[in-house]
Amino acid sequence: MFDQVTMKLNVDPLILSALQEDITSEDVTTNAIMREPKLGNVELICKQDGIICGLEVFKRVFTLLDENVSFEEYAKDGDRIQNKTVIMKITADVKTLLCGERTALNYLQRMSGIATYTSQVADLLKGTKIKLLDTRKTTPNMRIFEKYAVKVGGGTNHRYNLSDGILLKDNHIAAAGGVRKAVEMAREYAPFVRKIEVETENLDMVQEALEAGADIIMLDNMTDEMMKEACAMIQHKAQIECSGNVTKENISRLCDLGIDFVSCGALTHSAPIMDLSLKNLKTNI
Amino acid sequence: MFDQVTMKLNVDPLILSALQEDITSEDVTTNAIMREPKLGNVELICKQDGIICGLEVFKRVFTLLDENVSFEEYAKDGDRIQNKTVIMKITADVKTLLCGERTALNYLQRMSGIATYTSQVADLLKGTKIKLLDTRKTTPNMRIFEKYAVKVGGGTNHRYNLSDGILLKDNHIAAAGGVRKAVEMAREYAPFVRKIEVETENLDMVQEALEAGADIIMLDNMTDEMMKEACAMIQHKAQIECSGNVTKENISRLCDLGIDFVSCGALTHSAPIMDLSLKNLKTNI
Amino acid sequence: MFDQVTMKLNVDPLILSALQEDITSEDVTTNAIMREPKLGNVELICKQDGIICGLEVFKRVFTLLDENVSFEEYAKDGDRIQNKTVIMKITADVKTLLCGERTALNYLQRMSGIATYTSQVADLLKGTKIKLLDTRKTTPNMRIFEKYAVKVGGGTNHRYNLSDGILLKDNHIAAAGGVRKAVEMAREYAPFVRKIEVETENLDMVQEALEAGADIIMLDNMTDEMMKEACAMIQHKAQIECSGNVTKENISRLCDLGIDFVSCGALTHSAPIMDLSLKNLKTNI
Amino acid sequence: MFDQVTMKLNVDPLILSALQEDITSEDVTTNAIMREPKLGNVELICKQDGIICGLEVFKRVFTLLDENVSFEEYAKDGDRIQNKTVIMKITADVKTLLCGERTALNYLQRMSGIATYTSQVADLLKGTKIKLLDTRKTTPNMRIFEKYAVKVGGGTNHRYNLSDGILLKDNHIAAAGGVRKAVEMAREYAPFVRKIEVETENLDMVQEALEAGADIIMLDNMTDEMMKEACAMIQHKAQIECSGNVTKENISRLCDLGIDFVSCGALTHSAPIMDLSLKNLKTNI
Amino acid sequence: MFDQVTMKLNVDPLILSALQEDITSEDVTTNAIMREPKLGNVELICKQDGIICGLEVFKRVFTLLDENVSFEEYAKDGDRIQNKTVIMKITADVKTLLCGERTALNYLQRMSGIATYTSQVADLLKGTKIKLLDTRKTTPNMRIFEKYAVKVGGGTNHRYNLSDGILLKDNHIAAAGGVRKAVEMAREYAPFVRKIEVETENLDMVQEALEAGADIIMLDNMTDEMMKEACAMIQHKAQIECSGNVTKENISRLCDLGIDFVSCGALTHSAPIMDLSLKNLKTNI
Amino acid sequence: MFDQVTMKLNVDPLILSALQEDITSEDVTTNAIMREPKLGNVELICKQDGIICGLEVFKRVFTLLDENVSFEEYAKDGDRIQNKTVIMKITADVKTLLCGERTALNYLQRMSGIATYTSQVADLLKGTKIKLLDTRKTTPNMRIFEKYAVKVGGGTNHRYNLSDGILLKDNHIAAAGGVRKAVEMAREYAPFVRKIEVETENLDMVQEALEAGADIIMLDNMTDEMMKEACAMIQHKAQIECSGNVTKENISRLCDLGIDFVSCGALTHSAPIMDLSLKNLKTNI
Repeated sequence: MFDQVTMKLNVDPLILSALQEDITSEDVTTNAIMREPKLGNVELICKQDGIICGLEVFKRVFTLLDENVSFEEYAKDGDRIQNKTVIMKITADVKTLLCGERTALNYLQRMSGIATYTSQVADLLKGTKIKLLDTRKTTPNMRIFEKYAVKVGGGTNHRYNLSDGILLKDNHIAAAGGVRKAVEMAREYAPFVRKIEVETENLDMVQEALEAGADIIMLDNMTDEMMKEACAMIQHKAQIECSGNVTKENISRLCDLGIDFVSCGALTHSAPIMDLSLKNLKTNI
Repeated sequence: MFDQVTMKLNVDPLILSALQEDITSEDVTTNAIMREPKLGNVELICKQDGIICGLEVFKRVFTLLDENVSFEEYAKDGDRIQNKTVIMKITADVKTLLCGERTALNYLQRMSGIATYTSQVADLLKGTKIKLLDTRKTTPNMRIFEKYAVKVGGGTNHRYNLSDGILLKDNHIAAAGGVRKAVEMAREYAPFVRKIEVETENLDMVQEALEAGADIIMLDNMTDEMMKEACAMIQHKAQIECSGNVTKENISRLCDLGIDFVSCGALTHSAPIMDLSLKNLKTNI
Repeated sequence: MFDQVTMKLNVDPLILSALQEDITSEDVTTNAIMREPKLGNVELICKQDGIICGLEVFKRVFTLLDENVSFEEYAKDGDRIQNKTVIMKITADVKTLLCGERTALNYLQRMSGIATYTSQVADLLKGTKIKLLDTRKTTPNMRIFEKYAVKVGGGTNHRYNLSDGILLKDNHIAAAGGVRKAVEMAREYAPFVRKIEVETENLDMVQEALEAGADIIMLDNMTDEMMKEACAMIQHKAQIECSGNVTKENISRLCDLGIDFVSCGALTHSAPIMDLSLKNLKTNI
Repeated sequence: MFDQVTMKLNVDPLILSALQEDITSEDVTTNAIMREPKLGNVELICKQDGIICGLEVFKRVFTLLDENVSFEEYAKDGDRIQNKTVIMKITADVKTLLCGERTALNYLQRMSGIATYTSQVADLLKGTKIKLLDTRKTTPNMRIFEKYAVKVGGGTNHRYNLSDGILLKDNHIAAAGGVRKAVEMAREYAPFVRKIEVETENLDMVQEALEAGADIIMLDNMTDEMMKEACAMIQHKAQIECSGNVTKENISRLCDLGIDFVSCGALTHSAPIMDLSLKNLKTNI
Repeated sequence: MFDQVTMKLNVDPLILSALQEDITSEDVTTNAIMREPKLGNVELICKQDGIICGLEVFKRVFTLLDENVSFEEYAKDGDRIQNKTVIMKITADVKTLLCGERTALNYLQRMSGIATYTSQVADLLKGTKIKLLDTRKTTPNMRIFEKYAVKVGGGTNHRYNLSDGILLKDNHIAAAGGVRKAVEMAREYAPFVRKIEVETENLDMVQEALEAGADIIMLDNMTDEMMKEACAMIQHKAQIECSGNVTKENISRLCDLGIDFVSCGALTHSAPIMDLSLKNLKTNI
Repeated sequence: MFDQVTMKLNVDPLILSALQEDITSEDVTTNAIMREPKLGNVELICKQDGIICGLEVFKRVFTLLDENVSFEEYAKDGDRIQNKTVIMKITADVKTLLCGERTALNYLQRMSGIATYTSQVADLLKGTKIKLLDTRKTTPNMRIFEKYAVKVGGGTNHRYNLSDGILLKDNHIAAAGGVRKAVEMAREYAPFVRKIEVETENLDMVQEALEAGADIIMLDNMTDEMMKEACAMIQHKAQIECSGNVTKENISRLCDLGIDFVSCGALTHSAPIMDLSLKNLKTNI
């Protein structure tokens, strides 16, 4: 996802905005002390075990500030890192290192936190065919980073936003006058490459969605029994997503119900960060 | 903080960017089903206990999309809310309600989560004069929201960013050639309204900072013993901030050491969200 | 598509940019002559037969310049309009009318031209089940307007852009090492709500795409015979899109081949505009 | 026009916006298949005869995405190209080629279409002193590209926008209280480097404009007879522009009337595109 | 110039940027003290004699911050104001008044300073036909304000920028290979509505410019004698602009030479501000 | 202040905006004459004595337009330059030199003017411990440049803007209900790194501010006698700033009163520019 093109078009504006949030006129402390350019290097070190994620973003923060930064990398996104591991060495003018440090770490810590948490949840689904999905419950202006972190952690992305996926919820269904009518309106209106997903709350709705030709049927906050029955009804004629307050603690019970996907908002809204820091700055190099 | 002026100048561009992240062309689902404008209302409901925070931001998401939104509010920022409480009723065109829902909740859930967590930590300092500080370990492009949430939760803000506060860390001190020299350079360079803070790692540095006239001395990752000694040396000639991996679990031990402030990155980087949702949409009003 | 939300988030920035293209400091002519505000009205008149499209955009140009504009509308998007029909009466300060005129018409003329041309092509498919699709061959910074015009003219939208649809072309297939491998890589990588479309050039590719489970198979520049065979092979297990230099002149031959969709770049890249103008300005009202 | 400075200040923001229109998060298809960087090249090929125009813009699309693109160019703007000619070879990471292809072609096809059409119309004026002018009937956010294409095709540019040229139309004249008064107000108000043009509908207005000292007199929708008389009255004391529904089909009749300029909106609003494509991608280089 | 349209398109972005320069997160002082909305009013008072200019911009600063501001105006742009005069009363929430005060005054003071100074210089040309011109020596991002102030002060605007006026200077002439060649190249290249101005340093150049058909001839840093001769040569076949270190102190000598225009950079680059302030804030209204 | 980081984040957007103000489509004159790239160089020459300031900004204007510019520098910011000195030689494509010239000089002339004027005022305080302060009376969108110029000229910066400094003025004090209450509210509300400054108009207020623990006390428009008394009362328990219509002409009287700082709005709002120009363009290099 973080190829050169996406970086330029969709990521750089966000990173620049984040840097401007942290530096509205200048870094007064650094500029007071570092009157002359001075080459230095510093190490990126892990302070707890976890899955590292966001290294390209981390590096981009520095290269946006200063073209003359170089990196020695000892790990890549998705690697499982042990506490105290040196992940990267960054060499640049010391001002660049000090001015970019916090913003770069703020991205990296959060993305690695999400990848680590996602990986823990995904592990609980191992041995089944069920895929773990993210949601749109992301931090504002962080979606591109957080969705990527879910993927690095072993999850699968649901729709990116309201424009590129169709999900008919209770309110849409009510407004349309029923599941069948809603599916028809969506099929008529939407670009033909869209799959149509319907959120269902009971077996009647499942049946109706199935008959209307929904591509994906979401079972929302159903009991295990209901979900089993729903899967039996659907018989793989549509994909099945289970949704509703899924967490690390309660996900295991879903393994044998017959569902294809389970979505989990906590992946992006409540993962704790992974502790990382820049250490061992050397300025006489 | 979220007065009309700040909203217009510093908050609206961020909210608009967040909305554009979620709607790159149109909300396909909603537009497929809601072909005509239709007035409706919906309730904002709390799904767990906590401190609500960010209601003005929540409302702004909707009013940026549509001037004709109205709100009945039953709570205000800082209120302690019980699970299942109705916090607000929002009335608008149903499209507006559906298109703004997720972005508005993403802000509100995160801000309320931070306020709630901050309040829990701050409670542990009750009965002392110690104030709880935030840090710059905020989510990129979320600082203005997260710093406000800390305040609502009972915390105190540290500097906003690198431009409006001076904090001389180990690298600055090394580059300057010692604490005294660093403080002098900062005093000479910085706008005269800046307080000068020095990060210290041992008692010699504390002594030197004190003699150099530092306004604030940070005791970084010191033992309780060292901190006691440092406080004794400083004798209120400078303000004292304690820093280093402070959490809800370990903060109590700091109460009797004589420090003035304790800073805690976890307030903004690892608070879990507070669960909130929009329920009971009515479209025939 | 042009609901209030999309207007605010995705359309207004483009219209403002277009207006700034036309007014870099001021409208010198108008400001020279109109020294005082003066209410006036003017009629939007059609100068040839066609399908009108873009009235909301047309109106938005004026309301972005001046909140106090009012409109009397005698037609709506999609209406078939006769030459010389009065479509709307616009009332505002005369300066607003004169400054916004050209930009508003430039949008409306182009959108109506596309709707009219699309309607002519779509008419040729009447009586069949084939749907007419647009492409990404749109004018830069005009896609949201042009895709909407296709829909108003009776067409169906293909994917909006590279982020919200998957289309595996020859180069992707070559890079992946074959159709099957390409479809697998796409299914593994993409958000699970994406349909997978494969471009095929011969019957072997069609067969391979079918077996790989492609959701949509595009028959690119095939002969009628090949297309018939392809449809026979596919047997509605995937949707079938026909593509390649389709125009008003040659589309009829496609009606009986068994395809589901036909895409046509000319809808957006070569439709002539529809002639419209503002006439009968009255300034003494 | 498309020198380095204009590119940087006035063109890059538009190209970036066009690219962001096509890639809102990532190119899902390409990223799914091309997991590693891979150098490739591709040929830009003409699929019909015409005047090529916009090669610098075409190249800029790719260099904005990726600094490491190189071009072998076999033609330059304004060249008359035969069907099937290879115009350029582009070498870059394959992702860059695939992601930029459509946007680059969308610019190039439209600009070349305008240059080709303009050239055909201008040819009809050969042997006369009459110059062919464009108008402000350009596609929104495309003016800088379309005005340049007119020039490459052999046309001459009229004013760029409302800020840099004065054109007193019927409404301005009515508001001012007559031609003489309008010209005086314009001369008093406008920067002294502006020429003053007056739109006239009959010979009385021509006479009045001439006496008021108009620099340019536009003859709007006049009969050939009236235009001849007008030219005789003006006697080269002002420049003469003829305007009103001029097309390739009817322009020849204007050659002998004595006018200096003829303006033609169709150059920019209704020229069909020139068919161009990227072919023969090679990835093992 | 500061009509509604120009305000919206070209002025608002600059004012917003200026406000964001002054408020990067919030007005800490005001927000600390004013916890609740409170209506107040304040007077705009002149603290020295001069020409007031920029009242619409001054008001716009406040209305951009807050729609609910009202103004009682006792003067208008161009009025000669006596020291201590009350120019306007502004009524709004006190926060709005305090947050907008400095930015609003910074615009108004500078614009009024320029209008006042321009008026003083223009007075020295009274009784002649010579018009006083500004230059492009304006403060960056202030041109639209400063050019308007020159006009309000009685001056005339030269070209707005490099895109809307042609001025062939020594370097252009050298590059083209002489005055005649330069004029020809400009006439061939430029939009036909542009006047062509040539900067001349001696009488030979004047002669050549005249013969080449220049519309405006600038006499740059010539002696009075040379200027007289030049005017005699030109005989009103071109407009004549005198340029070069013109100030209030030395402009009178130019009155009788026969020139049409004199340009003066000091109008915009060195006029002292006019002292204005907000006084008598009342908060219990 | 103008390090690489600040340039990128906070300065480049302003310079680009200034360049776009001067070039809305293209530099017509230069593009008419310079059809081919041509390397040239030109000298930056001082036309009056003064302190040069803004060379990095001057250079940035050119490098933003064109990466291939090189500079030979013979002076640096803060140097006292004699009339006719060559300060720098710039080598680049001639188009770059001509297009950037005016904007680059507009910045440099203004910044050097402020540095020169500040230096003259600061000289009058030599031999005392009093420091010369700037204010927020800066030109809109020029603060970062003007505050830097004050520093280069020997002044000291006051707060940068409303967000990073606290200054309780009469209105704030009135709204809060007295000096003591205002200081308390500010201390409670503001980030703890803010110093609190109080504006006082009489000795009672000084006393109250002192007792409330203000960090800085401003003596506003007081007589010399009052200021002496105030200083005696304060006894260095707070810093003392003197304010109110201070100019080069009247500043000397303040030297012996006991104050620490004197602020002067004229530094930024009324310094005349320093005359500089680009001369001796050579194009055959």
